[in-house]
Amino acid sequence: MQRPPAEIGQPVEDVDTPALIVELDAFEANLQRMARLAKEYGVHLRPHAKTHKTPAIAHLQVKAGAIGVCCQKVSEAEAMVEGGIGDVYVSNEVVGRRKVERLAALGRRARISTCVDHPDQIEALSEAARKFGVTLGVRVEIRVGNRCGVPPGSAAVELANQIAALPGLRFEGLQAYNGKAQHVYLHIERLVAATQTVTDARSTRDTLKAAGFDCLYIGGAGSGTYEIEGKSGVYNELQTGSYLFMDLDYAKLRNAAGALLGDWQHSLFVLATVMSRPEPARAICDAGLKSVSIDSGPPALAGNARAEWVRGGDDHSGWLYADPEDAPALGSKIRIVPGHCDPTINMHDWFVGVRGGKVETLWPILARGAVT
Amino acid sequence: MQRPPAEIGQPVEDVDTPALIVELDAFEANLQRMARLAKEYGVHLRPHAKTHKTPAIAHLQVKAGAIGVCCQKVSEAEAMVEGGIGDVYVSNEVVGRRKVERLAALGRRARISTCVDHPDQIEALSEAARKFGVTLGVRVEIRVGNRCGVPPGSAAVELANQIAALPGLRFEGLQAYNGKAQHVYLHIERLVAATQTVTDARSTRDTLKAAGFDCLYIGGAGSGTYEIEGKSGVYNELQTGSYLFMDLDYAKLRNAAGALLGDWQHSLFVLATVMSRPEPARAICDAGLKSVSIDSGPPALAGNARAEWVRGGDDHSGWLYADPEDAPALGSKIRIVPGHCDPTINMHDWFVGVRGGKVETLWPILARGAVT
Repeated sequence: MQRPPAEIGQPVEDVDTPALIVELDAFEANLQRMARLAKEYGVHLRPHAKTHKTPAIAHLQVKAGAIGVCCQKVSEAEAMVEGGIGDVYVSNEVVGRRKVERLAALGRRARISTCVDHPDQIEALSEAARKFGVTLGVRVEIRVGNRCGVPPGSAAVELANQIAALPGLRFEGLQAYNGKAQHVYLHIERLVAATQTVTDARSTRDTLKAAGFDCLYIGGAGSGTYEIEGKSGVYNELQTGSYLFMDLDYAKLRNAAGALLGDWQHSLFVLATVMSRPEPARAICDAGLKSVSIDSGPPALAGNARAEWVRGGDDHSGWLYADPEDAPALGSKIRIVPGHCDPTINMHDWFVGVRGGKVETLWPILARGAVT
Repeated sequence: MQRPPAEIGQPVEDVDTPALIVELDAFEANLQRMARLAKEYGVHLRPHAKTHKTPAIAHLQVKAGAIGVCCQKVSEAEAMVEGGIGDVYVSNEVVGRRKVERLAALGRRARISTCVDHPDQIEALSEAARKFGVTLGVRVEIRVGNRCGVPPGSAAVELANQIAALPGLRFEGLQAYNGKAQHVYLHIERLVAATQTVTDARSTRDTLKAAGFDCLYIGGAGSGTYEIEGKSGVYNELQTGSYLFMDLDYAKLRNAAGALLGDWQHSLFVLATVMSRPEPARAICDAGLKSVSIDSGPPALAGNARAEWVRGGDDHSGWLYADPEDAPALGSKIRIVPGHCDPTINMHDWFVGVRGGKVETLWPILARGAVT
């Protein structure tokens, strides 16, 4: 873990760069808004901690009304439980003896659940739960996106029967997250994709019901489709993560009125320093591929939509200014809006929370790199 | 920093995943080969530590004959000096008071140098060097790639004069690294690009010489062009980094005979576990965008060139097998070859060194995330 790039009370211009800046007013507005929407829809909010990887932020989400958090990896769940979060759901298949035992061990300290899509996973979970003397919640994942899961329908009943039959396990419902649908920019197309997801979840729920299985949780939905699942009457748990920060990719989503998803605010920026001015229209800053992820497209410059990102390498980015007069002087600080928030956050060790131009808080990203 | 995913002596199949695996036989062959080539060319080797970010590996490079290491950031240099490396060159402009002072502070514990492309940087370095009572080596960077630097020629003399005139600084030569040229796949095109770089470095060296400045170091060259600069008679320092590990992008380079650069070996892999088998021809593994960087193209599967990577998300990757019979069983371990080694390494906290199927060493990646 690197030393923090800032000190509490420092003006933001004095923060060392690159640094991961969170504008706290925008962050808190996003935090409260999702909590309010979940309440309005009458569903639980279990935000995804894979986005922030930070127990301090998970606690803020719980305080705002979340029932617990999702994690994607056991090591993330360990960081959350170590950080005092009492209800952690690993929304992913956990495979491998060492991993499954680590998950079961957490069951001694918190309410732990996970999901499955194969009988072997259920066997392994039961064995580990017995070894550690705990009960693990288990959901069946159905295939509604491009990743894991059994086909919607009767396959889920077979797994639910197995979960119910084995000691140390408690059947808890369904995992039905359509990752691809989150990033469909046009509302009508996103609606079609998420509606299919809802239909699959509903039919599987009904099939399970007919077989005598009640679903405590039917969970899924990300920051692109939460309204659709939230109002579906089928889902009772939203698993949104990116809403706290937003990024360029989520900012491309249009709502039902055709407008960009403007009710959410960008709260996350990478602060960088202009370290070279090789040409009048070009500034080179000290944040490259190791500070800003480009897997979902290039970053943008906050406050100047006409500055174009030019790949610089691991530790540089170039910015080409439409008007050279806009190009900042050597030593200036600039703010970069990431294309994709989660992998960007996963490269940094600290969130630098700022308000009114001053550093107010430093949150250690304790589960950064927690991928096992 | 996360806990290591492996234990010394463990069979590699028992390593927790995702894990960054280094095949030590291949790694050591690469390590020795570059040292041998530098000796053969009669130039210094100052490998780039931005690739591995690991003092333990830097020491192996020094033991094999390197004169010290390059770093790209001050925080990387701090990790190297803290780890006992005695000669560290930051091959990048250092801008910002806090950063420059941190660099100067290192001068009390090691031989420290850096490069500049603007008078303001030189002033700031001199001020900090005086404050900390040290002498910093300073090179002038010339613009031979797509990043920083003054134009080749007389502009370098102006900066050299300023360096020579200010206390606390020692003029040390030229930085002339053409990053773009490293990734030009055809040999003739790479030769043209690197030859232009050599020409620019030569003319600048001669201009400096005429003005009374000798260059202690003329440095540059990466793992794509090292032979061209190494044999140029102009450069006397190679700054290669990726050669230790190689990656898919470097593996596309062709040599003068038209063959792929086969004398280097892939030594770096991301070990992953198959966690879901949703369809006969598709396997989902537990390594996604937070374990393998895709900025230079998708990863590949070691040992199966016909398996196609399918984007899965932050924590998953899908693999589509041309022949379903090749698709591995649930729980199997697979080895992924990264598209780009540096940003992939920068996501992990540990190198797991293996030999003969057993874990032999665990190297902490102490400068991981060191971007300031």
